[in-house]
This record gives sequence, C-alpha cells and structure tokens, in this order.
Amino acid sequence: MILIDGKAVATELKQQMKEQVASMERKPSLVAILVGNDGASETYVGHKERACAEIGFRSQVLRFAADTTQEQLLAEIDKLNNDKQVDGFIIQLPLPRHIDEQVIIDAIDPRKDVDGFHPVNVGRMVLGMEAFVSATPLGILELLKYYNIDTKGKNCVVIGRSNIVGRPISNLLSLKGWDCTVTVCHSRTKNLKEVCSQADILVAALGSAEFVTSDMVKDGAVVIDVGITRVASTQTKNGWKLLGDVKFDEVAPKCSYITPVPGGVGPMTIVSLMRNTLLAAKRK
Amino acid sequence: MILIDGKAVATELKQQMKEQVASMERKPSLVAILVGNDGASETYVGHKERACAEIGFRSQVLRFAADTTQEQLLAEIDKLNNDKQVDGFIIQLPLPRHIDEQVIIDAIDPRKDVDGFHPVNVGRMVLGMEAFVSATPLGILELLKYYNIDTKGKNCVVIGRSNIVGRPISNLLSLKGWDCTVTVCHSRTKNLKEVCSQADILVAALGSAEFVTSDMVKDGAVVIDVGITRVASTQTKNGWKLLGDVKFDEVAPKCSYITPVPGGVGPMTIVSLMRNTLLAAKRK
Repeated sequence: MILIDGKAVATELKQQMKEQVASMERKPSLVAILVGNDGASETYVGHKERACAEIGFRSQVLRFAADTTQEQLLAEIDKLNNDKQVDGFIIQLPLPRHIDEQVIIDAIDPRKDVDGFHPVNVGRMVLGMEAFVSATPLGILELLKYYNIDTKGKNCVVIGRSNIVGRPISNLLSLKGWDCTVTVCHSRTKNLKEVCSQADILVAALGSAEFVTSDMVKDGAVVIDVGITRVASTQTKNGWKLLGDVKFDEVAPKCSYITPVPGGVGPMTIVSLMRNTLLAAKRK
Repeated sequence: MILIDGKAVATELKQQMKEQVASMERKPSLVAILVGNDGASETYVGHKERACAEIGFRSQVLRFAADTTQEQLLAEIDKLNNDKQVDGFIIQLPLPRHIDEQVIIDAIDPRKDVDGFHPVNVGRMVLGMEAFVSATPLGILELLKYYNIDTKGKNCVVIGRSNIVGRPISNLLSLKGWDCTVTVCHSRTKNLKEVCSQADILVAALGSAEFVTSDMVKDGAVVIDVGITRVASTQTKNGWKLLGDVKFDEVAPKCSYITPVPGGVGPMTIVSLMRNTLLAAKRK
C-alpha cells in the first residue's frame, strides 16, 4: 500500500510555481472577497493569502460587512472584472443568506473565475475544453498524475454528486485521456456496497465520517478520500480530530494507493487555486 | 414489453405546443443558419421548418455559401443576438472545415441558444440549473416522463460519452429528481458486457449499428436506442434501411420498455428544439 502524500506533492508543486513566478516580470495577482465574519472562511482565506506570499503572487483580501447588499457586492465584482491588475479573484463561500450565491458567481468574468465555479467554466470542463477546473477535482487529478496511477479503462466509482466535487471529478475522469468508466453514486443509490466493491478507483466525496468500510473496497483499489469532518476526540489536546469519508485503518491495508485525512486531497486544493491563478496570469 | 412510440409522443407534444402558441399574441421565432450544401443538413433544416409551420412558430432559414468566412458568420450571429424579433437560433452543423465550430457556438447568446450547445448552457444543465438542454437528451427525458418510467435509484448505463448525447444524458439522469446511479461507458471500457447487463436503464448512444445484443441486456430493462445508421438493404425499395445501436429483434423481448429505430428517440429531437424555442420566447 502506498500512502498518497498530498502535503509533500503540494509543497513540491508550490516550489515549482515559485520558480516560474520568480522569472515573471509581472507577478500573478489573486483577490479574495470575504463577506461577514465566518470563522472557517477567515481561516481558509488566511491559508490562501499565505500560499500566495509563499509562491510570490500578489494578493489582497477585500473584507465586507455581513450586511453588505447583493448590489454592492455585484458592483465590487464589476470593478474586479475590469481591473487589469487582477488576474483572478474568488468569493469565499458561504455568503450571508440575503445574497444569492448563484447570481454572484454568474457575475464573475469567467476568465478571472479561478475557483472554476462559473457555469461557463463547468460547461467547458464537461465538454473537454480548456477551463478553470475547481480546486478539489483539479487537486485529485494532480495526485493521480503525480503517482502515475493508470486510469485508462479502469472502473471508477464516485460517491457523491455535489457540484464542487462529485459532479466535476466524475466528468473529468471519463474524458478522453483519463478514460475511466465512471459510476456516480449518491444518497438514492440502492446497491452502494456492491457498486463500490467493483471500483478500481474509489472517490469518496459524500461528507460522512468513516462511511466507507473495508467490505466496500476491492483488493488493490485506489482510494481517494475527499471527506473532512471534525469530530470530538479524547485523544487530542485540542479535543477534536479530523476524519475522512473512509475508515482508514481497516481500508488502507486493502489498497494499492490511498489518501490520508488530513494530508491527502486537502493540501492540494490551495495549490490548485494557485495553478489556476498562474494560468489566468499567463493567458493574459 | 412496451414499445416506446416516439412518433406518437412527438405528435401529441407538438399538438400541445400548437394550442399554447395559438393563444400567444407574439409567435415564437426560430432562425436556422445553413452554410454550404450538405444534403443531410438540408434535410434536417427542412424538418425543422416544417415543424415550426405545424406548431405556428415563425421561422426563417438563412443560407450562406460554403466559402463564407468565419468573420462573416460571426457578424451574422451578432445580428441575430441583437435582433429582438428572434427568440432562438441554431447553426446547423457540421460547418465547412475552415470554420471553427466552437468559436461559432461560443458567439451565440446563451439566451437564444436553443440547441443547448453553448458551454454556459451545458454548465447550467450539469449544475442542475435552468438551461437549454440539447435536443436528444431532452427528448429522452420527455419519453421517460411520458411513459412514467421510474428512474429513482435505478442503475443506468450510458454507452457513449459524446458531447451531444452521452455526456449530457448521463449528467441529467444523475441529477436530483431523476436520481439514477449512472455509469458512463465508452470505447476504453473493458468489461462492457458485464456493466451493461447490470443496467435497469440502458442508453445506447455510440453510433454503431446493432452493437447491443441480448446477452448485454438484463431481463426487464428499459432500453433507449439513440443510434441511427443507414445501411444497404435488399429488402427495401430504396436500397437502404435505418438501424439503431441495439439489435432490436433479439433485445426487445427481454425489455420492459424499448425505443424502436426509426420512430423512437428520433422524432423527439425536433420537438425538443421546438420546446426550447417556446421557452426562449416565454422567457422574454
């Protein structure tokens, strides 16, 4: 069993980007919009800022009060769309309830949509065209590539059909080049165990701690664990720990490759955002 | 075994639209652009014109010489995008080789893209948003609905990953509401027979005459045949006949429902285009 070390891969890819950026006269620039005071959002945006600094990108966080109106936010997006100094920008989700997230996402210029959430980027990705692919699915592809995992003709089962993970990764892996035979499972799937146990590559992205047990996994399978759930723990100092969607201890021995949680897919997501920003800067 | 009568359903749906249109002061309007002298394209556009006349839409075919430049075509699209009299328009494919089809499709205003080929419509469809869905997948959904075929939790296998059929129908059937567990197979799939024979709903969209044989189909399956291949025949007056992707005679007895070729999915595609045009007119 080979443990997929997302942290190490992320570090290496960031180093590569840093070298590329060092030779660029105009440094790529990423702007993050943060509305309200969501603690988790603050943390995520902080991680992104640090990654920018590390690689040598210019970055900026624009903070808005929780009672900012949709119109004000749209005006801000319009400014960023037209600001030639900005290569890419993201709106940290979730937004306060009085704002329609889809209206906001639709307003982003797709050429600056480095989160890959705009429908035109989703459509381009599904059609196999050049597109900004959202962070988590792009991170998964990078890991498969890094470890030279053969995907062609393999049975891939994706658990979860969310718009940010399950849906895009299932479309990507069935594209030419990746060539998996992909099955998408979800809450309405009847024979889930049976389907999963036929997978050469199993992507767990349902968001339910330790859902995937060893009886659902074929010997020699590649298991990609996208879940990340915080649960109370008496074994850690801070009183909690992070769990994936896979019951790691019992599943890992059966796998050819597996991603741990934390340290698997997670560290790759920020790298993916950075790659998209670099791409946006180069395209200009 | 119930034969899904696409022709009858199409006739009924056209009649319903005709009644709706009769009460509309401003009739929906569809424009088709035809470049060059492709015989099949002429036929298809002719069918579309007739359907418009039947239902009471305004329609127009704009014909351009085979040596029309990409720039000229883009200028024409720009005019149609801005013409308030036009609700929807289509560019009949294929285009002459010197024209980049994707550039042309990208230039269509998504609100008038009644073929549903623009990436923004594909993205919106994949994300489960309101969108123009392309004709064949929309026609398949209409047939499933018309025959009250239960899709929830069913294993659906789609053979083919084309951008106009396999890819969209597989995404649609795994959306909430349809709730199939969908597997997409293609030329690189290794255990195709095994995968297909587990399908409750089998969609054959690979474009290979009589590819699906009875050993690939489960007893009681619903079989949707999207293929249409013209082959030489000594049994018909004109010397040819149309075959689907399914070996009908041996597969049909095993099915709960099956679409014939011709007369199954085919007649529904034009109805779908008409539905999209009606929708475009209503949205305005």
